Amino acid sequence: MKTETLRYQLLQAQLQMAKRENRALVLMLSGQAASYMHPMLNTLNHWLENRRTEVHALEPSGEDAKRPALWRYWRRMPARGTTGIFVHGWYGDALFARAERRIGAGAFEDRLAMIREFEAELAAENVALVKIWLDIDRKTQGERLSAMQEDPSRAWQLDPADWQRHLQHPLIKALGKPLREITHTDWAPWHCITGDDPEDLVHQVAERLLDTARQPTVDPEAPWASCHLAPAAKDAPTVTKPDPASRSAGRLKKDDYQQRLVEQQARLSHNSREAARRGIPVVLVFEGHDAAGKGGSIHRVTTALDARHYRVHSIAAPSDEERLHPWAWRFWRRLPVDGRFAIFDRSWYGRVLVERVEGFAAPAQWRRAYGEIRHFEKRLLEHGTVLGKFFLSISKDEQLKRFEARANTPRKQYKLTEEDWRNRARWDDYEVAIDEMFEQTHRTHAPWSLISCDDKRQARLEVIERVNELLERRLDGAL
Amino acid sequence: MKTETLRYQLLQAQLQMAKRENRALVLMLSGQAASYMHPMLNTLNHWLENRRTEVHALEPSGEDAKRPALWRYWRRMPARGTTGIFVHGWYGDALFARAERRIGAGAFEDRLAMIREFEAELAAENVALVKIWLDIDRKTQGERLSAMQEDPSRAWQLDPADWQRHLQHPLIKALGKPLREITHTDWAPWHCITGDDPEDLVHQVAERLLDTARQPTVDPEAPWASCHLAPAAKDAPTVTKPDPASRSAGRLKKDDYQQRLVEQQARLSHNSREAARRGIPVVLVFEGHDAAGKGGSIHRVTTALDARHYRVHSIAAPSDEERLHPWAWRFWRRLPVDGRFAIFDRSWYGRVLVERVEGFAAPAQWRRAYGEIRHFEKRLLEHGTVLGKFFLSISKDEQLKRFEARANTPRKQYKLTEEDWRNRARWDDYEVAIDEMFEQTHRTHAPWSLISCDDKRQARLEVIERVNELLERRLDGAL
Repeated sequence: MKTETLRYQLLQAQLQMAKRENRALVLMLSGQAASYMHPMLNTLNHWLENRRTEVHALEPSGEDAKRPALWRYWRRMPARGTTGIFVHGWYGDALFARAERRIGAGAFEDRLAMIREFEAELAAENVALVKIWLDIDRKTQGERLSAMQEDPSRAWQLDPADWQRHLQHPLIKALGKPLREITHTDWAPWHCITGDDPEDLVHQVAERLLDTARQPTVDPEAPWASCHLAPAAKDAPTVTKPDPASRSAGRLKKDDYQQRLVEQQARLSHNSREAARRGIPVVLVFEGHDAAGKGGSIHRVTTALDARHYRVHSIAAPSDEERLHPWAWRFWRRLPVDGRFAIFDRSWYGRVLVERVEGFAAPAQWRRAYGEIRHFEKRLLEHGTVLGKFFLSISKDEQLKRFEARANTPRKQYKLTEEDWRNRARWDDYEVAIDEMFEQTHRTHAPWSLISCDDKRQARLEVIERVNELLERRLDGAL
Repeated sequence: MKTETLRYQLLQAQLQMAKRENRALVLMLSGQAASYMHPMLNTLNHWLENRRTEVHALEPSGEDAKRPALWRYWRRMPARGTTGIFVHGWYGDALFARAERRIGAGAFEDRLAMIREFEAELAAENVALVKIWLDIDRKTQGERLSAMQEDPSRAWQLDPADWQRHLQHPLIKALGKPLREITHTDWAPWHCITGDDPEDLVHQVAERLLDTARQPTVDPEAPWASCHLAPAAKDAPTVTKPDPASRSAGRLKKDDYQQRLVEQQARLSHNSREAARRGIPVVLVFEGHDAAGKGGSIHRVTTALDARHYRVHSIAAPSDEERLHPWAWRFWRRLPVDGRFAIFDRSWYGRVLVERVEGFAAPAQWRRAYGEIRHFEKRLLEHGTVLGKFFLSISKDEQLKRFEARANTPRKQYKLTEEDWRNRARWDDYEVAIDEMFEQTHRTHAPWSLISCDDKRQARLEVIERVNELLERRLDGAL
């Protein structure tokens, strides 16, 4: 294709995408081609609509380093209608860590498996991936680097790291093969591109980009079908048949409660300071029936924490920036920095609860969400996050009593909305959704705690005790 | 007021605010009252609608430390409809730096003057400020700290820093007086609160909060009238009477251009690496007539930069998250980390250009914007940012030629929109707005470069040369 035609069509495709806001485009550039990267980026920047394109070739910042590894890519994920160009990106992390022997062969494969899951998730959410491996042979590359070095008008384009990468050429070429094999999929295929003429290389990349931008969007089911999803849990709790061995055994007297609460809070205060000192991040999720007492339980936890150490995130309808990104983006952006608590008052589980029951999410979307949630929580755990998931349940009778009490207390009336009554009318649908959620997302290292809240005091104590147990298991090195 | 009534009314006020989304509420807690802070926050957290309230008592993160001082408050500024509680906040930075003798008396006053401007800006943008100085006498505070220390059920609430602050009690009390005097304004008054009963103190704070939440919104002009705005510049450029000494003198041949461009790019590459090494942030602003060549000029600059070192921000209509924050928030959030370039393709000057001419901003808003812009740029300069502002101008005839050329080149057609023709029809209105912008915002350390772009090559060279000059003046220590 002639350059002029190619540029025109690329722009048209980008403008179409911007108009429809139906997908984002990610161009991943990797391979053994250091000397070609700068002119390539430069030409692409020139050809593409620059108001709709961002290049990401950043080293991790301080805040990046203190979050799960994919956080820095999630925070830079292009919104639908825009294009993001990543230089090595998530592949660079695996590739250079292995090339420099910072990780072993097993860890390298683990990272590639993680990338496969990550890209499946992106593809299912309409992020179109164009992955280019620039396969330049060593001699050509070496000659080009030398020529650049000697030409005063181009020498400044070289970075000392370019020579380092050149020395690693055979290693990167060798690692590139399994890397591409493991992460080559129908929805995120690799394109191996070779040659020695920079202009021709750009042409090849631009044509792949154009092809992808013009393809219909991916069937979101396909990427998921290929992911090895863990089987459902056997020991998951159920709301329909509550565990008879539940801790809540009889009403608790106020004095006893106060004393035990203060003990637990002192213990939590100590544990949280220790977690802060060691840089351990903590994520607590609160879901539950309306009026079960999520707010009150969260308050008993935060009372014990230093105000500098936690944030409570109430999850409601997404903002328009959030709507333009893959579903999980709104949770990734709220992850705590190491050593801090993020407490979610409702969470990513909304997808398989309210969004499912109310029909805000299509069946395919909420079914896929089980896998997305497992991936997301796996990323947290791999990073060393302490993850607590609490479901606060009450009986249908108790809920009615509390709704009535709210209706009769002026400062609580605002808490009772029509939505609460509507949800209550769908009690049985919720029960099904809740139990399926437990079955699909209860995991050894991310277990659900089902807290029976008919006795509020007992429930609050149980939550804070379990948070302490989780923290101590981690602080003692058992988790 | 009885507790129950107070809580009820506070909640109602918050819910009203949330419904109307017409203002944000900021509660600033400072003073010499370390031992009261924890229970106070705790009770407020309990009383306020927690989905609409955030407490900010964070130490600066790595990313905070590498941005202008107010960045970390801007990024945490509550959206309209929500409440943010700051513990010491921007006052803490000044107060403790002075108490610990890290800054002198003059710098202390400078910071308070900065805060005054900052709060005027917030108030004018409907951020209601409630500033509480907790004035607890030393003896009461000491007794309370000792009592807490000895009570196992409360000892965990103490932080070692609480004792340190207690020792500084007389100093903080003494510094508090001028601090409050300088920053006490009609729209952001200080409330001095005293007592020894934590419950009573919370009551006093909650009543102030309630008063403010119920007040009508501030007249945005009032805060500005009090700010000492610098007089208009005398040596500002003008588009209506161009400088005859402008550098553009005759057409430039292609070969000459190419050679000089590469020289300038090599120089810029060197300068930018040096800026990265020294952690100097660079902000470049590009404004100009439609079709003057902003995109092309930016491209010639970025060609010389390492892709890891810059971001181009195209400023268009704000997102809904941006709309819920004060006007300047959308620019603060895009400031570069130290050592990096942020290049703005259109910028905060849109307020006094397109928004003024098209009537998107009310006259009071765009007039106020001159001051807001000066404050914003002052913050950048104080932090050591290299700031370049370029206005790319073309003659009306040349613009017509380019519009026609765009209409006839397929890959450029998308660049020509009805808006361009509409803007052209208002050429004279824009000329008035542009010249007033120069007059109001041309400053010794933030000068405008008016680049005549009828000759594109000459213009591109001039831009990159000026960027180099700015950088070198800074790198040589002259700026």
